[in-house]
This record gives sequence, structure tokens and C-alpha cells, in this order.
Amino acid sequence: MKICVLGGDGYCGWATALYLSQRGHEVAIVDNFARRQWDHELGVQTLTPIRTMPERLNAWGRISGENIECLSGDICDYDFISEAMKQLSPDAVVHFAEQRSAPYSMIDRKHAVFTQVNNVAGTLNLLFALREFRPDCHLVKLGTMGEYGTPNIDIEEGYIAIEHNGRKDVLPFPKQPGSFYHLSKVHDSHNIMFACRIWGIRATDLNQGVVYGTMTDESERDEELINRFDYDEIFGTVLNRFCAQAAVGHPLTVYGKGGQTRGYLDIRDTVRCIELACLNPARPGECRVYNQFTEQFSVLELAHLVQAAGRKMNLEVEINHLPDPRVEAEEHYYNARHSKLVELGLKPHLLSESLLDSLLNIAIRYSSRIDQSLFLPRVNWRNAHNERRQKTGVQAPPPLVSAGGNRHSGD
Amino acid sequence: MKICVLGGDGYCGWATALYLSQRGHEVAIVDNFARRQWDHELGVQTLTPIRTMPERLNAWGRISGENIECLSGDICDYDFISEAMKQLSPDAVVHFAEQRSAPYSMIDRKHAVFTQVNNVAGTLNLLFALREFRPDCHLVKLGTMGEYGTPNIDIEEGYIAIEHNGRKDVLPFPKQPGSFYHLSKVHDSHNIMFACRIWGIRATDLNQGVVYGTMTDESERDEELINRFDYDEIFGTVLNRFCAQAAVGHPLTVYGKGGQTRGYLDIRDTVRCIELACLNPARPGECRVYNQFTEQFSVLELAHLVQAAGRKMNLEVEINHLPDPRVEAEEHYYNARHSKLVELGLKPHLLSESLLDSLLNIAIRYSSRIDQSLFLPRVNWRNAHNERRQKTGVQAPPPLVSAGGNRHSGD
Repeated sequence: MKICVLGGDGYCGWATALYLSQRGHEVAIVDNFARRQWDHELGVQTLTPIRTMPERLNAWGRISGENIECLSGDICDYDFISEAMKQLSPDAVVHFAEQRSAPYSMIDRKHAVFTQVNNVAGTLNLLFALREFRPDCHLVKLGTMGEYGTPNIDIEEGYIAIEHNGRKDVLPFPKQPGSFYHLSKVHDSHNIMFACRIWGIRATDLNQGVVYGTMTDESERDEELINRFDYDEIFGTVLNRFCAQAAVGHPLTVYGKGGQTRGYLDIRDTVRCIELACLNPARPGECRVYNQFTEQFSVLELAHLVQAAGRKMNLEVEINHLPDPRVEAEEHYYNARHSKLVELGLKPHLLSESLLDSLLNIAIRYSSRIDQSLFLPRVNWRNAHNERRQKTGVQAPPPLVSAGGNRHSGD
Repeated sequence: MKICVLGGDGYCGWATALYLSQRGHEVAIVDNFARRQWDHELGVQTLTPIRTMPERLNAWGRISGENIECLSGDICDYDFISEAMKQLSPDAVVHFAEQRSAPYSMIDRKHAVFTQVNNVAGTLNLLFALREFRPDCHLVKLGTMGEYGTPNIDIEEGYIAIEHNGRKDVLPFPKQPGSFYHLSKVHDSHNIMFACRIWGIRATDLNQGVVYGTMTDESERDEELINRFDYDEIFGTVLNRFCAQAAVGHPLTVYGKGGQTRGYLDIRDTVRCIELACLNPARPGECRVYNQFTEQFSVLELAHLVQAAGRKMNLEVEINHLPDPRVEAEEHYYNARHSKLVELGLKPHLLSESLLDSLLNIAIRYSSRIDQSLFLPRVNWRNAHNERRQKTGVQAPPPLVSAGGNRHSGD
């Protein structure tokens, strides 16, 4: 199929573009490289030395013989995205092109407003461009499991059958998102559902869990294809960050009790889920929701897994409980349905020691690039503004030294 | 109390500001006069000749002896709204300052994006300003009953107790809004709920029904205090529009079958509900939701009421069924709870012939200001763009002539 990957320079987007290309699809990337700009803003960088887009695409062409086209532009620019839809005529658009970090959205008002306006307006533009120029194209939108929050009932895939006062309906699952970023995804979900209803757009909203891992079969083929590995407090997802911490002997930073339970998946499953959604498109007017994760873990369980894997590699891994910078339940019920992608054919890569070994080895290999000052949370949900700008020339705070398991007194 | 009315130049806002001032509260209006600008954009005007804000406030001072302060500015400008919160130090902020027309938001992409960005960013700015400079102030936010859509179960006030697979929780009521405008209010509701949770903001989200009427005890005291009366397809709420149509012998424009049922309330109840919410503030961290309406009607029921009232005044009132320009159920179950404001002391003004007489008389009094070309719907939900700009000098389309009860063949 002809598949357009919006945000194809990012962590999930790059892996997806390579996978789809390898599987014989005609792939075009659209990206405005905002993700690289945010690294500069925050003074952080991916652990792995990712290449520029031209280098990436040249390497992929050389190695695979496949061509991936890239259009540079911002989907908040309607002239650009509508022209791209006309020009590329995709069968499916995979939409990763959003600001995707919860802490980034919680830095201050400007970052909160930016995240919501950027994500909501970008998605609205895309919906209008599809309606106008590519009405039969299937929208595969990346949402997040974080849209649901942590209700005290089982989480269904997008919709819930409710019986109330003797009457019944199937309604959108109630949402209780936990950051201005997660809220932006909830706003998107409502907008997409409406566009399907009024215009007959076909959409699949993938409520993705927390992604871990960096290597896929494709990116492993050459170092020039290497994917991002974010380990900082803003963009580093928890398992990747723990591995980077373990690699340099920094205590794992567990927020609060660590009972926060979420759905997780390997990036090799992310790319497969996207293909499964594309190959099995929604019907016109249908807004399908799939919960895209394979296993549930609490943060503390993940810390213990990394600790165990590290010990086998002779790494001394301490676990530190920091005051939770987020406002969230530190212990709660969590049980989320995730069977629809399995029914379509997903064979999950479950989290095993072998994956943790490989992640730890990557972290060790690039450990000279790690700035330990970036591990500690500096964005507190309770504050209306957090100082998170890069201050070049300022001494980084000393690395955290503390007995394992003790509660850290603050930062 | 010290109450700040954001959007105090608008239809509900002006009536509220006068009422609160009359009741002895210290009132300040904040407005950027965008509503008047949209009239210019669309080539429409209120049936009633409203005065400029300085004229309005001078008249109110002269007549009541009370002073209402007005700050001119846009809440999307954070410097402005945060300075206003510091300077005014309100006990309650009543937030009407949004683009509030569903058809306006459905004109085209620019109007859709404008509506969502304006409403969402404005409310985010207000939340941050309260958190920073007035954390104990009570936010009274105008939402809409349209956030719920028309589910096949009873609509509760904001939250619903759900039992699912043997477990229970009380969750936000699922939302199925019917326009990009209504969606913007759903986005706001989620943002406000989150701000209450993380920052301890006090908020009351008033899901208001469709408001009718124009006179309140205060605005009746002098013609210089007269309130808006919108009758056009974009800003005219249905009952007001029907009365204007009846006054000039234009058939009432019922969309589709007219079985669309919604909650309605008299503007005299709007102002009282706002005061009740202010006098009984939410607790810190609480996000209360009240359904603010007094009676349910279908559109066809309202048409028949206006027809009957018109006949008694010797007006020949036809009813025309036009193809529904909106995408909505034309017949459906509808039963929405609305007891919380009554419990606080609301004594509803129910829709009676006397109110309809008064509304019809106002419409007749100002009928020379009616442009009949503005009655007919020109914004179709199914289109991605609708031509709705004013074309000065272009001949208006001829008034609709059709037998009562017949389905009009198109617009």
C-alpha cells in the first residue's frame, strides 16, 4: 500500500517507516523536525547518535534498495499538508506528528498551550485535508493509553456498553488523562470521532502504551539507521531511562511508591501493530479504537526487572524512590483490554531478559553520551511553571547518591 | 462578592453582569468585543439595537447607581488576563468568553480551528492565571448541554456511576458533541477537571441548555441597556429565531423532522443560575458539573408553541421542514437530569405564552431591522467549507415561499 508516515523522523515514526518499507509498502515520511528542535531547547540528546534525514534515507536506499520519500513541513500549515495529501495520494496516513511528552507539556503555560494547540490544530488540519482531497484514505492515529487514566473498572478498547436506569447504549469510554499532553490526545480522539461521523472518514485510533526498546530488524542493519533512545526525564520513557541509569551506575528513579501500572510494548510490536491497522482498514465512517500494548507492569516491577538483568551483567543497580513529580495514583487498580490487535494477528514480543540485555548493552555502548543531570525530574505537575531551559555553562547538579530503596528527600 | 464576567458584552454575559450588579455584587466585565466583530464578518446584526459598552455602562450607572468596570482585552493574551486577575482580585470568575456558535465553527477549516484554539487556549490561560495569581477564586465556566450529545441513556450531571465486570467507579459522563464548537467545550471540560485535580482549583462547569428570551428585570429598565437578540442562522438560538420569523411572516425553519430534543432555559434563569453557583462555590480541587436548563422541548414542539402564540396575535405562522444542515439524530431518546441548581434555590421561569408574547412583541417592534436572507441555513455540516462571507452589494436570495409543513427541497 501507499502509506504516509507523519512524524516519521521520531522514535516510533522512524521505526515504522523502515518496517513498512521493508514489508514492501510505498512509504513517504512527512516531518518538520520539531522533535530535534526540542532536544536543542532542553539541552538533551538521544543516547544513540541518530543521523540526519538525508543520511538516514540514503543509507536505507543503499541497504534495502527501497526508496522512502520525505516531505519537510508542518501539518499545522494547511497549505503544506493538503498539498502533501494531494501529491502523495496515500491509502493510509499514520499520524505520529504530535508533541508526545507529558513532562514537556507540564513545563509551564507556554508549553501546555503549545502542546494542545499544536496537536489539536495539526490533527484538525489533517482531518480537513483528508475530507477535501483524500476522503477514502484510512487515518491511523496514535493516541495513548494515558487517555483513560486509572479508573477503578476494567478499561475497554475505546467504547463501553453502559446500562443505566434500565436503558442501554455503547458510549465512548470516559477519559481521565493525566497531563496537558494526554489531554491533547483526548481532544484529538473526540475530534476524530466527530469527523468520522459527519464526513465518513475511516479512522483507527491506536491507544498506545509506553514503548520500550530501540532496535528493530530494520534499524539493526546499519548504524546509520539507528533509532532514537531517549533517556532524559522529559522524553525518556521509563524502561529506556532505567536501562541508561543502570548502565552508568545511577540509581533507578522510581517516582513515589512505583505502583503506577500501565500498558507497555516493544517497539517491534509498535511497527507491526501499525501495519496490521493499515492492512485491515476501518470502514468509511468508522472510528475504531485499539488498545496497543502487550503487557502491564508497575514502575517498581520494571525497576526490579532492570535490577535483576543488570546484576547478571555485574552492574550494581540501586532503586531510588523520589517524591512523585506527577499528580497520579501511586497504587491503583488497572486492567485494560488489549485483544483486538492480537485478533488481527499480532504476535507480541514479551519483555524478557534477552531484550533487557540488549537494551542495557546499547546503553553501555553509548554511555559516554549520557548526561546524568538529565535523569532527575525537574518538572513538577503541581507548579504552574518549572525552570527547564538549558543553561549552557552552568554546572550540572551532582549525581544523586542515596541508599537503594530509600525515599529521596527532594530535588 | 467581587465577580468578574468574562465575555460580559455578549448575550448571556451582559444580562449576567447587570443582574449580579443589581444584586449588590461588585462586577467587572472583561471582553474583547469579538462577538461584535463576527457580526460584521457575517453581515448580520442583533435585532435589538444594542449600545456600545461605554453607553451601556454609563446608562447602568445613571439608572442603578451601581458601577460596573470594564477591561477591554483578549483572554488568549496571557499578559492581559493574568494582569486582570491580579488587578481585579475576584472571588468568582464567570467565563462566557468563547466563540459559542456551532454553525460558526462549521463554516470551514479556519473557523473550526479558530473556535477550538480560541476557546481551549483562552480557558487554559485563565486556568494558569488563576493558579498563579488567584488560586482561591471560584471558576464558573459556561459549558453546554451539547457536550453530551444524545445518548440512549439518561444524561447525568457531569458524572455517572458505572458498574462494569463487578467493579464500580464514578466517571466523567461520556461525551458525544455535535460540532467543532461543542467539541471545544468538551476539551475545556477535560482541561478544567485536570486543573482542579492537580492544582486544587475550584470550578463549576455549567452545562447550559439553549437560552431564549432577551429581557431581564435589569435590561428592561432602559432601552440603552437592551440585550442582544440574534435571529440569524449562525448566532440565533432556535426559539428567538422562530419569533423573528413569525414577526415578519417568514415560515419557521425546522431542520429535518424537528424531533431534535434539547434542554432550554429562559435568560432570566441563566443569570440566576450563575449567581447561585457563585454564592455556593465549589470546594478547592472540586470540579462540579451542573446541567443548567429548566425544560426539554423538541424543535417541532417549539415551532408549534410559536405558531399558537402567533395566531393569538393574528400572525400567520407557517412551519417549514428544511433538510437538516447538521448531522444529528432527528428523532431520539432524551432525558437529562437537572436538579442540582433547583436544589440550590433556582425557581424556573417556565416557557409560557406570556413569555412568547413578549418575545414576539420585541420581534415585531424591531422587525424593520430583520434581513430575511439571514434565516436560511447556509452552513452544512457535511461540507468541509461553506460560503458564508458577507457579500455587500450582492442581491440577497429571495425569501423562502413554501406551503407550511412541506419539506423544502434544498437551499
